[in-house]
Amino acid sequence: MAGQGGITDLLIRFATCEVPQDAAQMMRLSLFDWAACGIAGARDDDFADFAQIQMTMARGPNTILGGGTAAASAAALINGTLSHALDYDDTHFAHIGHPSVAVIPAVLALSEDIGADLETLVDAATIGVEGSILTGLWLGRDHYQIGYHQTATAGAFGATLGAARLLGFDADMTRAALGLCASMASGLKAQFGTMAKPLNAGLAARTGVEAALWAQAGVTAAHDGLAGPLGFGATHHGMDAPVNLPRKDWHIASISHKFHACCHGLHASLEALGPAGLNPDEIEGIHIRTHPRWMSVCNIPDPQTGLAAKFSYRQTAAMVLLGHQTGAIANYTDAITQDAAIVALRDRIKVSEEPRLSETQAEISVTLKNGAMRRFKHDLMTPMDMNVRAAKLNQKAQALLGDAAARALWNAAQGESLRGFTSQLVMS
Amino acid sequence: MAGQGGITDLLIRFATCEVPQDAAQMMRLSLFDWAACGIAGARDDDFADFAQIQMTMARGPNTILGGGTAAASAAALINGTLSHALDYDDTHFAHIGHPSVAVIPAVLALSEDIGADLETLVDAATIGVEGSILTGLWLGRDHYQIGYHQTATAGAFGATLGAARLLGFDADMTRAALGLCASMASGLKAQFGTMAKPLNAGLAARTGVEAALWAQAGVTAAHDGLAGPLGFGATHHGMDAPVNLPRKDWHIASISHKFHACCHGLHASLEALGPAGLNPDEIEGIHIRTHPRWMSVCNIPDPQTGLAAKFSYRQTAAMVLLGHQTGAIANYTDAITQDAAIVALRDRIKVSEEPRLSETQAEISVTLKNGAMRRFKHDLMTPMDMNVRAAKLNQKAQALLGDAAARALWNAAQGESLRGFTSQLVMS
Repeated sequence: MAGQGGITDLLIRFATCEVPQDAAQMMRLSLFDWAACGIAGARDDDFADFAQIQMTMARGPNTILGGGTAAASAAALINGTLSHALDYDDTHFAHIGHPSVAVIPAVLALSEDIGADLETLVDAATIGVEGSILTGLWLGRDHYQIGYHQTATAGAFGATLGAARLLGFDADMTRAALGLCASMASGLKAQFGTMAKPLNAGLAARTGVEAALWAQAGVTAAHDGLAGPLGFGATHHGMDAPVNLPRKDWHIASISHKFHACCHGLHASLEALGPAGLNPDEIEGIHIRTHPRWMSVCNIPDPQTGLAAKFSYRQTAAMVLLGHQTGAIANYTDAITQDAAIVALRDRIKVSEEPRLSETQAEISVTLKNGAMRRFKHDLMTPMDMNVRAAKLNQKAQALLGDAAARALWNAAQGESLRGFTSQLVMS
Repeated sequence: MAGQGGITDLLIRFATCEVPQDAAQMMRLSLFDWAACGIAGARDDDFADFAQIQMTMARGPNTILGGGTAAASAAALINGTLSHALDYDDTHFAHIGHPSVAVIPAVLALSEDIGADLETLVDAATIGVEGSILTGLWLGRDHYQIGYHQTATAGAFGATLGAARLLGFDADMTRAALGLCASMASGLKAQFGTMAKPLNAGLAARTGVEAALWAQAGVTAAHDGLAGPLGFGATHHGMDAPVNLPRKDWHIASISHKFHACCHGLHASLEALGPAGLNPDEIEGIHIRTHPRWMSVCNIPDPQTGLAAKFSYRQTAAMVLLGHQTGAIANYTDAITQDAAIVALRDRIKVSEEPRLSETQAEISVTLKNGAMRRFKHDLMTPMDMNVRAAKLNQKAQALLGDAAARALWNAAQGESLRGFTSQLVMS
């Protein structure tokens, strides 16, 4: 049970909460990061035909990442998909998903429809992202383990809640929108590794827009489609885990941003090595210890392609030590896996599993040629100062978009003009 | 396991089967009945704002029931919803759902896009309807019992298969479309009694259109999103029941059409009494025996409203015996529950449960004033001659639309011109 009245009552009350300043500040960072990932993702030709179909079938004024326009629900669908295409967007480990790609495209599209300013968009997105994390916590790990893609399922409820906040719904209408969402929220982990994974995020964003607009149009739904009898939780292996209204510290504070364009299992080791200040010429050997789960996921010892490089401790560690930007997608080439300096350093790196570590931790010991030993470790769950995070996100955006575009996007995302922001999304 | 290679391989092979003539003939009857229910359903103002939103957001040339146009995916969504609004459309007890409302709107919209003739539409719809029954059989009763609205879930796979047939997909593309469908198929029984129930049908129809168009646009998906690891069946309480390719007798042959605008639990008794040729003045008493499950569903002894009349054995039996059309929605008024002749006859009717009967059976004994006893029974599963069925469907359509409109619709549905057919859909 989630507080008094269950998760649905909790979410409905939550949709009218005041958003704390630091939560909104974090959401602004995620908005910036989402846009950078989305603009870069829109360059991928894979989804061009898909996006074109939607834009042709649903003409409208709403901004599409990379250029073009469509009606609100189609814009949410396309933007949600494109912004998850690189799988480089933010993550929340309690949500077990990527919150921004479902929520932001929904509130962005509706913000354009009603002419909201950026602060209003960020306010609604914060409710939506936090709402999707609360829903994810309530659904619990079973839901994810059995095969549901929580980015899409919990994400659809978050997108719906963000839309309800933006449109100023009363409790009854928010309830109706959540009820409609319960019939539409869907998406399978079986799609991982295919284009349907980003599509799932887009579908969740569209569901948020449609559930809200259809509730507004008077379409009725189950009184408690999420948590009631035969509801979404009961049918979709939800755990009905205890969830409380967030008080001072919102879950959004512990959102994770990706700073490396490779498998998340590698990030802790790269964060540990990045600031280590090691001179590669002085290194005799490196020993990386990681959680056992990652050994079968991202421990390709001698990758031969750029794609395989994204799943290699040895390759990415050598890259970061030799000054190659691991945040730049363009750096993961077939050629870099054959680079002589990389290969030589890579061959001095050993990787082993360490059950004592959590999935977000890595420990690294480095033996120097002078016999000295140095140790580094990192946990991705370590709180990060907001300014440090902002600086790292700017660096990432620069790697994705170039310096000038990244700076212009940053300024727009910190401003109040929605058009100022959306005008940056179509640059490429 | 479903044959060699599982249900997905079976459905892919099935999509290229030759459609037997009698299956297509039955599909023509369902097409006519679907249209009659849809035109009548479109008169319901409840969905007017919903339909308007879709038509505004997705302008296009495709026909909308009752009038208006929209792009293909929106047309499928709106038409699927409107045609299930009255809950008067066809049913299949093995599918555990309403096959036509998910499949026909999808293949109709795509038929308009490619300029197909009506025979091609019917061919694709037959594959789609039979495909949704095969999927429903494979998912099994658990899937329905746990809370999934099979009209929408199995229906989405059927709509996808119908779309794939219509667009002439090869095996790989049909596979991709089914894989995309696996992430979108959704819909809960928790919505029963709300507008989200018909909406579920519309969503399934839209999923068929979108899964096909997106597969065509190169969007990739899980190799076996329906039956593979973490797939739709595994996550949605599917039973993986044995299913074979249909041979001579297709499941569509045992489709049920509703001939009475009331609860399905009453239909067997009304079918038994309808042709009995009884003179109400000669009746001393009537005893209706029915399956125990229906006693709590549709046995309101003295209904006071038109809605309650739809759930009353005594009321509807009195109506049919006194010559009131039970197929006409307009006949279920508050006034008819107070009609003196109805009340007098109703009071001579007794209803009791009989565990020996199946859910589709009713037994009726009538004591006449002259002391004679007559017995009648009916099973909805009794095969019905195609001509008898056609005559009954025409009678139903006349009750819904008026004689002239029903005749024009019948002729159009028997013809080959798609425009001839769609032009009938906008009459009201």
